[in-house]
Amino acid sequence: MSPKITTELLKQLRQVMKSPKYVQEPVQAYIVPSGDAHQSEYIAPCDCRRAFISGFDGSAGTAIVTEQHAAMWTDGRYFLQAAHQMDNNWTLMKMGLKDTPTQEDWLVSVLPEGSKVGVDPFIIPADQWKRMSKALRSAGHDLVPIKENLIDTIWTDCPQRPCKPLITLDLSYTGVSWRDKIVALRSKMAERKVLWFVVTALDEVAWLFNLRGSDVEYNPVFFAYAVIGMNTIRLFIDGDRMTNPAVREHLQLDSTLEPEFKIQVMPYGSILSELQAVGAGLSPKEKVWLSDKASYALTEAIPKAYRYLTPYTPICIAKAVKNASETEGMRRAHIKDAVALCELFNWLEKEVPKGTVTEIIAADKAEEFRSQQKDFVELSFATISSTGPNGAIIHYKPVPETNRTLSVNEIYLLDSGAQYKDGTTDVTRTMHFGTPSAYEKECFTYVLKGHIAVSAAIFPNGTKGHLLDSFARSALWDCGLDYLHGTGHGVGSFLNVHEGPCGISYKTFADEPLEAGMIVSDEPGYYEDGSFGIRIENVVLVIPAETKYNFKNRGSLTFEPLTLVPIQTKMIDVNLLTQKECNWVNDYHQKCREVIGAELERQGRHEALRWLVQETEPLIRVQ
Amino acid sequence: MSPKITTELLKQLRQVMKSPKYVQEPVQAYIVPSGDAHQSEYIAPCDCRRAFISGFDGSAGTAIVTEQHAAMWTDGRYFLQAAHQMDNNWTLMKMGLKDTPTQEDWLVSVLPEGSKVGVDPFIIPADQWKRMSKALRSAGHDLVPIKENLIDTIWTDCPQRPCKPLITLDLSYTGVSWRDKIVALRSKMAERKVLWFVVTALDEVAWLFNLRGSDVEYNPVFFAYAVIGMNTIRLFIDGDRMTNPAVREHLQLDSTLEPEFKIQVMPYGSILSELQAVGAGLSPKEKVWLSDKASYALTEAIPKAYRYLTPYTPICIAKAVKNASETEGMRRAHIKDAVALCELFNWLEKEVPKGTVTEIIAADKAEEFRSQQKDFVELSFATISSTGPNGAIIHYKPVPETNRTLSVNEIYLLDSGAQYKDGTTDVTRTMHFGTPSAYEKECFTYVLKGHIAVSAAIFPNGTKGHLLDSFARSALWDCGLDYLHGTGHGVGSFLNVHEGPCGISYKTFADEPLEAGMIVSDEPGYYEDGSFGIRIENVVLVIPAETKYNFKNRGSLTFEPLTLVPIQTKMIDVNLLTQKECNWVNDYHQKCREVIGAELERQGRHEALRWLVQETEPLIRVQ
Repeated sequence: MSPKITTELLKQLRQVMKSPKYVQEPVQAYIVPSGDAHQSEYIAPCDCRRAFISGFDGSAGTAIVTEQHAAMWTDGRYFLQAAHQMDNNWTLMKMGLKDTPTQEDWLVSVLPEGSKVGVDPFIIPADQWKRMSKALRSAGHDLVPIKENLIDTIWTDCPQRPCKPLITLDLSYTGVSWRDKIVALRSKMAERKVLWFVVTALDEVAWLFNLRGSDVEYNPVFFAYAVIGMNTIRLFIDGDRMTNPAVREHLQLDSTLEPEFKIQVMPYGSILSELQAVGAGLSPKEKVWLSDKASYALTEAIPKAYRYLTPYTPICIAKAVKNASETEGMRRAHIKDAVALCELFNWLEKEVPKGTVTEIIAADKAEEFRSQQKDFVELSFATISSTGPNGAIIHYKPVPETNRTLSVNEIYLLDSGAQYKDGTTDVTRTMHFGTPSAYEKECFTYVLKGHIAVSAAIFPNGTKGHLLDSFARSALWDCGLDYLHGTGHGVGSFLNVHEGPCGISYKTFADEPLEAGMIVSDEPGYYEDGSFGIRIENVVLVIPAETKYNFKNRGSLTFEPLTLVPIQTKMIDVNLLTQKECNWVNDYHQKCREVIGAELERQGRHEALRWLVQETEPLIRVQ
Repeated sequence: MSPKITTELLKQLRQVMKSPKYVQEPVQAYIVPSGDAHQSEYIAPCDCRRAFISGFDGSAGTAIVTEQHAAMWTDGRYFLQAAHQMDNNWTLMKMGLKDTPTQEDWLVSVLPEGSKVGVDPFIIPADQWKRMSKALRSAGHDLVPIKENLIDTIWTDCPQRPCKPLITLDLSYTGVSWRDKIVALRSKMAERKVLWFVVTALDEVAWLFNLRGSDVEYNPVFFAYAVIGMNTIRLFIDGDRMTNPAVREHLQLDSTLEPEFKIQVMPYGSILSELQAVGAGLSPKEKVWLSDKASYALTEAIPKAYRYLTPYTPICIAKAVKNASETEGMRRAHIKDAVALCELFNWLEKEVPKGTVTEIIAADKAEEFRSQQKDFVELSFATISSTGPNGAIIHYKPVPETNRTLSVNEIYLLDSGAQYKDGTTDVTRTMHFGTPSAYEKECFTYVLKGHIAVSAAIFPNGTKGHLLDSFARSALWDCGLDYLHGTGHGVGSFLNVHEGPCGISYKTFADEPLEAGMIVSDEPGYYEDGSFGIRIENVVLVIPAETKYNFKNRGSLTFEPLTLVPIQTKMIDVNLLTQKECNWVNDYHQKCREVIGAELERQGRHEALRWLVQETEPLIRVQ
């Protein structure tokens, strides 16, 4: 990996930073954040501006270019990668280290007095703008919005913004029509006394209208905004996607509808001016609801007194609680996904000993088996296929330079998932194709105990997921071990594989309480740098739990695993399990055998079925 | 309990709210918060202004009086009590209920346009001022500081501010001299590049100077502030307390000292003007460190650009980590405390069946036994002595109207503690003096399992206490039960029984990580309204734990119980315990027998010793 040479690019950027063509007044610094205008986790190639200007293409990082300096802030996952990908023009700012200045402090230390710092107001979230603007102002500088993105002005071969065809989802997938979703949203709006709601997150637009797209890899979303009034619906979307008869019918664009359900389709780029018009027309006490993570540009379009900002939007919360159709879809998707993985692992058991299977080949094979399943759309994220020491790199993705051959002497970790039209999957299994060492088994068993502790936990309605995080670590902690990532994240229903507002992580406090119908991952792990990585991940559904008593009539919840893929018993030191844990594994395997076995049978996949049966033999614990 | 008649008082308050003698311009509302000028949890009688004006004397509540209205905000613990204690002039605002307006929203809804809202700037913390001021300003009103406390102007028989003699603590108790504490503080100040540190919390002043007082009941503190510069020490304190030769010698007031250790003693009331002088003399980049909970008055004395505010001060953090002398003192205090409780419980076993022991008598008897112990100073909080249904009232304190007789048919809960010159105690035991029901034993055993889960937990260095809270609940949750309070709080060393910055509670996220030497309580419970309350509380010391492995060289921690009082085995359903839990109880009781037994022997308390031996018989678990 050789660094990108950015001398010429930086020169050009510094020129446009002073050019009256683009900036009213010259700016002495320009900030290039990671994100897109929708604060997406995964972004389209045309939005990879920070990677373009610096060469560093990790998923998190902010570049700041001044007349003299170019600096990149990123976190511990990416210190090495950023150092490799950037040339000497760049200074790496290692976030999380004690001596690393914040972006604000650094700017204050390098800028000449009374400087202007520019940023694209569509890319910076309003809360970040506020923080940075305040810090700069108190040091005598100004943060200024630059309408035209300055990177785009010098990015001559910038790819087009994707504008791929849409998929319509009928009631059998979504359970609720978009009209009913609008009705429910308006009732939430009435409750909070707001007149307008601005939908800025791509997955929220997709969910609201029961549409899917493929503008961003792995995420079935499309570039759009929506503005919902009490009597109007405006959808901001580009291209000829609205000429598709199926889409027109789905959205009832050509039907005679009550006016409050008539969708006005407008160009994607007109959101700002339309929102400004909405803002200008407000009377006192009329409020507009926005996510507090919406861009500064859109937030600013509404005068401050009229804004109603919340960390989680009503769509985010409604989307997280899956209805019966979505839950059934997720179940179906996970059954198909398990079929594919049984095929894969059966294949690997035969092929790995030959020494011809690399991490990339294994990942491709997993995709091949998945793509044979009904309603398969694409992967839900870049497959983490890692063997031996690569398994200890938590966000590993095999590339030719690192591609390692699977062997009977190393642990193999596969974290993968897919988008099916009926659901999204995300599963991690850690396998040994030879004979694991006692130490590897010991570590695996602690991780398994943590996985079970969360999966079998019973907790009161209203409990936030972060309160369950320590359950996953307790067995590891007892032996002085731990893992440095959260335990679980929300999972969308044929939507983003990572979604809010719930999760299981010690890092968050502001998550929304878990409730029946929510779907999260349960994925503790253990990683030994230079040796191996272990992770056991199921996607689990929050369900009501039956308990002996019922304190304050609150009711209790627990989890039901949707993922039904055997957990390799060869890796388990059964004597470290309690009887209860042993029973959990056996019950789980029994269910895998019944449900996935039936589907393998139905699909005529007899060899994989034999593998499944063999892998789900009950554990026996000697007391 | 008949309500306080406040008609005349409110009339007088409304008059001074308009009187040019006290206010520059009339105020249309006046806020009376709960606290004192040091944001203390326990306050002196002269600071009970909210109780004076309203009659409501619970520990939490804010009164707001306007020309037309008088309203009181308090939380669920106090709805009944406040309703009983206040007359019809007052509206009770039940915090936590959905339809209850915030103070700001209520003010905006009742105030005429452009109103002024007054508050004593010494009583309101700076962060609360900021929030309220912003909300009022955005609705066209003004929050204004009123120098003279308006309640004090009408409180004709207001008690004097206490000014009791000081106790000096020598090195054998404190482990570190006040000079060394100043040196350490200045080094923290240098690290953060601040030139001044303002000590506003009473327990922080007491800790810093190794002095104790008795100005506030239960808390061995005295009214004072301190301002520490890099070369100066100013102590703001009233009365003739500094004429005491022992105090003068302790503080070396008459010695020839290096100037940077020379303490300037100034009147308590001069803090504001002195701080304003400090603020006026600052050059750019010179900062003053304050707690972000310091009063608005003191915070405002320092121009904004020069303030360095943190949620926890360096003294708060240093104070929480007990040194060897403090730890040894806490051990001694807990041994003496256990002796007193063995005497008490032995006495109760004999007396309760006679039907003559009330909750108040039991509480008094507990105090009597404690006061027989060496270096006893006072109780560390109002004893919670509660039997039967009273046990379900978490913050119960027996008064003649509620005083219940202990019997062999009810569960008895005693939550009590004391201040000894060598340490502070806080212990809860739940006892049955007859035969508990199977259900009572079952609930008790779940609480015990939770207590053990925390006490025996092993966790990495750097773990925040709130991450352990769920361990205490897991056994209860499994059966659909729970308790609605946190699991633990920091405990001072001959200081406040509740102290920051650590604790074990799902309600907090911003606690500081646990580290060896910190001392917290471990007190899960279960409460059944109208029937009984169960709580098992030990004070525990954070100690290093030996583990099989040591991930990232972080090291591990666990707890050592300092409280050594038998847990009533009669209440335990041993079949609900795991073998590990059973061993924990037996090991704990073995230690009680050894350590407390030896002390009972030494003190010649043979009957209590017999009781201890009988109560610490090992449990036997039938598999």
